Amino acid sequence: MISKKMHKLNPKISTDCVIFGFDEDGLQVLLIERKPIAGPTENKALPGDLIFDDEDLDDAANRVLKELTGLTDIFLEQIGAFGSPERLSKPEDKKWLESVRQYPDERVITIAYYSLVNKNLYQPQASSFAQNAVWVPVEQVEDLAFDHFEILQAALKQLRSKLRTQPIGFNLLPENFVLSDLHKLYESILGRPLDKRNFRRKINKLGIVESLNKKQTGVPHKPSLIYKFNEGNYERLMKEGYDNFGF
Amino acid sequence: MISKKMHKLNPKISTDCVIFGFDEDGLQVLLIERKPIAGPTENKALPGDLIFDDEDLDDAANRVLKELTGLTDIFLEQIGAFGSPERLSKPEDKKWLESVRQYPDERVITIAYYSLVNKNLYQPQASSFAQNAVWVPVEQVEDLAFDHFEILQAALKQLRSKLRTQPIGFNLLPENFVLSDLHKLYESILGRPLDKRNFRRKINKLGIVESLNKKQTGVPHKPSLIYKFNEGNYERLMKEGYDNFGF
Repeated sequence: MISKKMHKLNPKISTDCVIFGFDEDGLQVLLIERKPIAGPTENKALPGDLIFDDEDLDDAANRVLKELTGLTDIFLEQIGAFGSPERLSKPEDKKWLESVRQYPDERVITIAYYSLVNKNLYQPQASSFAQNAVWVPVEQVEDLAFDHFEILQAALKQLRSKLRTQPIGFNLLPENFVLSDLHKLYESILGRPLDKRNFRRKINKLGIVESLNKKQTGVPHKPSLIYKFNEGNYERLMKEGYDNFGF
Repeated sequence: MISKKMHKLNPKISTDCVIFGFDEDGLQVLLIERKPIAGPTENKALPGDLIFDDEDLDDAANRVLKELTGLTDIFLEQIGAFGSPERLSKPEDKKWLESVRQYPDERVITIAYYSLVNKNLYQPQASSFAQNAVWVPVEQVEDLAFDHFEILQAALKQLRSKLRTQPIGFNLLPENFVLSDLHKLYESILGRPLDKRNFRRKINKLGIVESLNKKQTGVPHKPSLIYKFNEGNYERLMKEGYDNFGF
């Protein structure tokens, strides 16, 4: 564990993390609540902070996420840099920065990361300047501190475009599942309904799932076939990707 | 035009540009040659420099590209941030930084951008600390200053993954072309041969080209059908993207 005292903060570079969590309630995003200096509405932000001047960017993102929310062992993928000179200039954000930063007027460029995790496996614990760390349904997020809403939208876009070329779900669903669980996962990420038959046909064509030739028992509806992921095909497609073009 | 004298440089953030150029000789990349302080072999670098402290990232990339190579009006897409604390520490790079930077020991994180242009339309003109600005075939690039080789690889990866979900070629080929021109473009970007029949079938299925029902004349081989892009379909697919999954 890196101690803050041994490292100089880089006053011009920060990192912010968009952690999506999936469970039976749909797609959520992990937000922190700052101390209520700025009034209740603008209080929510992505977990983020300045990097150390001798720290790798990926390491910084993992450290900051851990310091603010307690979450560890999350594979973070970079979204990119967000650096509008105006990104910290909302009055409520300025007030908050004055309360926590040594150089609150410094222009800060942030390197944003994202991940998608099984929400049931992660219990956030707020610390440092985060008063609270909460999962919020993505579609309920309307505004965030700084340019974090814009960063959230970019993360969503990157996650959705990943659906086009890579399988998803292995770490998000239980070992055995029914196809409507996977269907719900895709719908949650895309934020819109998908035709069920079409979806099943495509998933079967990809070969990433296989039926156990068993049906659900004790369900109040017509029992569905139980599936598991075909690990070999899944991993191969994670590596190779797929595309309409088939090159 | 922004004057350097009016703006303070941000000593911790730079921008680097990967400009791919396509013509009948295949895929090239635009490199600058630094003054030969460091010996001839490590002299080539991507066009890049520090940003101003009050400058938007995209604007900085366009300005720096113009200052070093004279190229303007290029749509640059962000690749991401590259920030290893060791990225400037090769001895020849340090020597060069000492000759041009006010704070040569400062850690610099770079925001990288890329574009793909029709090489015939751009004549680079070196200026500032660039002694020369040259197009180099991508497959001939073996090493570059700083972490620029790594950035070039990331740009190639992003360009190639774009081929999977978006049409390409509209600004790179003449108005009328034969399908083997388009085939060559795809092969150049992917850096590997593609089966011709398969390629034609897929391109036709996408609907981005249409035949003029005319054949080449005066060619020393069997004349091929002449095509043009179907602008409507091309633009629609640029917006929507395509994918095997068809969501």
